[in-house]
Amino acid sequence: MALIVQKYGGSSVGTAERIRRVAERIVETKKAGNDVVVVVSAMGDTTDELLDLAQQVCPAPPAREMDMLLTSGERISNALVAMAIHSYGAEARSFTGSQAGVVTTSVHGNAKIIDVTPGRVRSALDEGSIVLVAGFQGVSQDSKDVTTLGRGGSDTTAVALAAALNADVCEIYTDVDGIFTADPRIVPNARHLDTVSFEEMLEMAACGAKVLMLRCVEYARRYDVPVHVRSSYTTKPGTIVSGSMEDIPVEEAILTGVAHDRSEAKVTVVGLSDAPGYAAKVFRAVADAEINIDMVLQNVSKIDTGKTDITFTCPKSDGPTAVEKLTKLQSEIGFAQVLYDDHIGKVSLVGAGMKSHPGVTATFCEALADAGINIDLISTSEIRISVLCSDTQLDEAVRVLHAAFDLGGEEEAVVHAGTGR
Amino acid sequence: MALIVQKYGGSSVGTAERIRRVAERIVETKKAGNDVVVVVSAMGDTTDELLDLAQQVCPAPPAREMDMLLTSGERISNALVAMAIHSYGAEARSFTGSQAGVVTTSVHGNAKIIDVTPGRVRSALDEGSIVLVAGFQGVSQDSKDVTTLGRGGSDTTAVALAAALNADVCEIYTDVDGIFTADPRIVPNARHLDTVSFEEMLEMAACGAKVLMLRCVEYARRYDVPVHVRSSYTTKPGTIVSGSMEDIPVEEAILTGVAHDRSEAKVTVVGLSDAPGYAAKVFRAVADAEINIDMVLQNVSKIDTGKTDITFTCPKSDGPTAVEKLTKLQSEIGFAQVLYDDHIGKVSLVGAGMKSHPGVTATFCEALADAGINIDLISTSEIRISVLCSDTQLDEAVRVLHAAFDLGGEEEAVVHAGTGR
Repeated sequence: MALIVQKYGGSSVGTAERIRRVAERIVETKKAGNDVVVVVSAMGDTTDELLDLAQQVCPAPPAREMDMLLTSGERISNALVAMAIHSYGAEARSFTGSQAGVVTTSVHGNAKIIDVTPGRVRSALDEGSIVLVAGFQGVSQDSKDVTTLGRGGSDTTAVALAAALNADVCEIYTDVDGIFTADPRIVPNARHLDTVSFEEMLEMAACGAKVLMLRCVEYARRYDVPVHVRSSYTTKPGTIVSGSMEDIPVEEAILTGVAHDRSEAKVTVVGLSDAPGYAAKVFRAVADAEINIDMVLQNVSKIDTGKTDITFTCPKSDGPTAVEKLTKLQSEIGFAQVLYDDHIGKVSLVGAGMKSHPGVTATFCEALADAGINIDLISTSEIRISVLCSDTQLDEAVRVLHAAFDLGGEEEAVVHAGTGR
Repeated sequence: MALIVQKYGGSSVGTAERIRRVAERIVETKKAGNDVVVVVSAMGDTTDELLDLAQQVCPAPPAREMDMLLTSGERISNALVAMAIHSYGAEARSFTGSQAGVVTTSVHGNAKIIDVTPGRVRSALDEGSIVLVAGFQGVSQDSKDVTTLGRGGSDTTAVALAAALNADVCEIYTDVDGIFTADPRIVPNARHLDTVSFEEMLEMAACGAKVLMLRCVEYARRYDVPVHVRSSYTTKPGTIVSGSMEDIPVEEAILTGVAHDRSEAKVTVVGLSDAPGYAAKVFRAVADAEINIDMVLQNVSKIDTGKTDITFTCPKSDGPTAVEKLTKLQSEIGFAQVLYDDHIGKVSLVGAGMKSHPGVTATFCEALADAGINIDLISTSEIRISVLCSDTQLDEAVRVLHAAFDLGGEEEAVVHAGTGR
């Protein structure tokens, strides 16, 4: 008898009718002889409606109260799914994140899971119940206040529960059939992937692939929880994320896919002194503003001036703050100016295969050059190559690379209508 | 420095604008130098919307899940009020019933408070915060599941918290200016009462007065918590419910008011054997169906037949069940038939004064007779006389008694628009 953890997103439970269909699916899984734990996000519009209400009563809502407010959404959807399961003749009990033993840090709105102690979940399973657990939430270890987990939090809840309960698999239900070699909306012949290793999925998530959030994949890899990403609209198998790329024989290692990301901006500090310590001052200033830096490029300094330029990328939403902080410190650090560009795109090729196949970087750059796409910055890891280009050329860059590495398949990928995970 | 507990009902927080006004009022109370704890019901339509959603996904929702679902409503409103308070520059923290230490029995949908251990509330108050507590809910002592308290639950939560925190007063905000000598919508010259004793309020609540539910008054009397019933639309003082009628000097004891009740039905078992034990069988059958009996009348038996009739009243919603149970047992118990009448009304005169003023019962019956109102059943206590009449004559009965005992005032009572407490 297997223990299966399933996660359904907001659009999967957006209406009473969809809730009943999800409940049917859960009961079938149970009837097949499995123990079933289900993590449900808030119903489609609920979180936005609550945010709107909050804005109406308070322009700058305190984070603790925002967490108390938003967690009602998951409470509602989980109780409704439990009721629907009951109407199909099976036992079901819903729990909040706190009741299910999800213990977190105290950072309201972006808490991290510290531990999961699922005693009540285990007892309910042993009594024959299907168990619902509200996703996206937990309880702070220190203050005992309710916390929310930030974007992708429900996926992380599901994986964390699967790890703590030693589940056989964690099924993430979404509105796409799984993971593809590229975004099917940009590359029509993107191929469906049956399996992806943890490390490759980590790179793809870090590089903009939106199906699974980075933190969720990190958790799955750390606790070795196989994650099955599949569509809630069909019964087709999706993509299984599991295993280490180290276990893939060299001759089988392939290139997995092309990810793209429009969410970053580029900041260039021009005319910085090339003496030791100055680059550090720039990065410290940005770090003090709690801004995450992604890619970095430091040019070779000009011999005649002894000056250099430093370029880095960060989330677009943080760009203006980074510029402001650096401008304030202009005389103190000593540089000529700060340049800002928020019309950039980042395209990445990911695959365990590039470790063992020389020439990938060359093919990569040639393909883009032949298409007239200018490369701004390059960054690589053992299994990933990322470059910056203009955002208007981004989609074309994805297609060009996808074709250059022969990633396409025969069928056209199917994309279901849906508003997201 | 006083500790004040305030309770606001659903219509008081029905919109973002109303929430902000309530928050303003709370902050004023705090600025006046008080510690403030506030119990808030769910926003006006929320509970009905959640019930509707539940019905759509499941025709017979399990009670445990219904409690998980409905308690989201109070969570939302309390978090929003806390946010609004924050926007007015004061500190506020919201807690669920469980977090506030409201411990209850396990009866989902109608749990009773066993104990209140408000440690976290007290700590937050000591840190200078205004504290919000979700009304209508608690946590089961046995199962640790979330429970709801049944009708009037938010009022009971407020009084229970006031008792546990040794508050100076519990203010219940509603859409009427307080308690009147009769329902102002039926008796235009009903007079506003400045004070009412606990026992008199208990009788009025038991006899149909809807401003405060019976359980809430019982709790207040038991722990000697003064309850100030006032309007959330004005700053006028309302009615203070406090003190024992034993403390009222005989010469000051008065008649307090006329209550009425349309919620009951009348069941008559005809031709029951008058031997010992038979009446008990009737009442046991009804009790086994968990139906509460209110008034009872057993006629003097007919000498020639040795048979008698028993009449009792119960909530209308339980009437058909009572008739069904008794009909099933007809041959076993032995009676001729069961009669059912759900067009009855109950009118009651309440007042500590009737203990010390003979003739009240006579005046009562004469007034009704003069108005051509037929009395079906009489039931009395030390400070109350209740009779049954037809529901079409009920409003007239209220007016007649109110006038007969000179309860009216000079001004016409003001009734604010609102959908309830």
